[in-house]
Amino acid sequence: MENRPERIILGIDPGTTIMGYGVISDNGKSVTMLAMGVIKLSKFNSQALKLRRIFERTLGLVEQYKPDELSIESPFYGKNVQSMLKLGRAQGVAMAAALYRDIPIFEYSPLEIKKSITGNGSASKEQVAAMLNRLLTFDKNPETLDATDGLAAAMCHYFKRTKGIKGKTYAGWKNFLADNPDRIKK
Amino acid sequence: MENRPERIILGIDPGTTIMGYGVISDNGKSVTMLAMGVIKLSKFNSQALKLRRIFERTLGLVEQYKPDELSIESPFYGKNVQSMLKLGRAQGVAMAAALYRDIPIFEYSPLEIKKSITGNGSASKEQVAAMLNRLLTFDKNPETLDATDGLAAAMCHYFKRTKGIKGKTYAGWKNFLADNPDRIKK
Repeated sequence: MENRPERIILGIDPGTTIMGYGVISDNGKSVTMLAMGVIKLSKFNSQALKLRRIFERTLGLVEQYKPDELSIESPFYGKNVQSMLKLGRAQGVAMAAALYRDIPIFEYSPLEIKKSITGNGSASKEQVAAMLNRLLTFDKNPETLDATDGLAAAMCHYFKRTKGIKGKTYAGWKNFLADNPDRIKK
Repeated sequence: MENRPERIILGIDPGTTIMGYGVISDNGKSVTMLAMGVIKLSKFNSQALKLRRIFERTLGLVEQYKPDELSIESPFYGKNVQSMLKLGRAQGVAMAAALYRDIPIFEYSPLEIKKSITGNGSASKEQVAAMLNRLLTFDKNPETLDATDGLAAAMCHYFKRTKGIKGKTYAGWKNFLADNPDRIKK
């Protein structure tokens, strides 16, 4: 095992046309940004190809940055059942990439994320991005606004954990098995 | 490469409390059942553990039976957005297991599946199971009815393909890249 005192958080905002992601490192004293970007899905004309892309790229991020935790933005309400099914599939494949590597998943609503970063649950994308830039300092470019949604999810989890307030926790598989040895089926 | 003239179809009906699956083999002359079963999810008290279980077991089925195609039952309508998001996640992790191994995914509605097997889109679970038993012959046991939903998805795809009628096709990644070399990003 490598010596790594800091904790890495991967934040993602899985959408069906674009997925934003951000990776931050928390060394206990300060938090720094390791990466931020977008996965563009609109170029793929079938839903399966989009899902495949999300899975591949999320797994790639997991393998590159070896995050300790995954923080995911998830709405609790949606326009209609069809869009929620599609969103659920996009989330599912992204979560599978984390589950595959035994990384605990935490989910936060858009309101919680905005509130944790700006203090205002109805803050605009621009306000969230501006505050993130003040906290983490990054170059601005056209892709920034979509990418900051993923970064915001990561920072939200960082704030919640620092404050000792947990979001909806998805405990890791190993923890579950350790706590529930009787549930292990041969 | 092994010599394998037959085609293997894995059918699944991913639910959030129980997932049914069936594996069939089509050698061009006849179709036989290789496996049928259920993955029970109600014992897991968190959604993440359920999703993890679905991913692990589906990947296990994919590795054990090496299916050429995955057929999935998916409703086009649902009760509410929350249940559709959960169902989408369950489907997403199951699909990720197939996408990971480059297996094309086909999806059919419950109505299409019932109709293809019994000729009646509003057939009962029992009628579908009885017809599947006539076609494939299997032992009846208490788990059969849940498991037959997955088997029914596999048989539906077999019938559709035999008749040359395709469901909603999710072409494989490799096929897509072969057809769209310009879409490959360095």
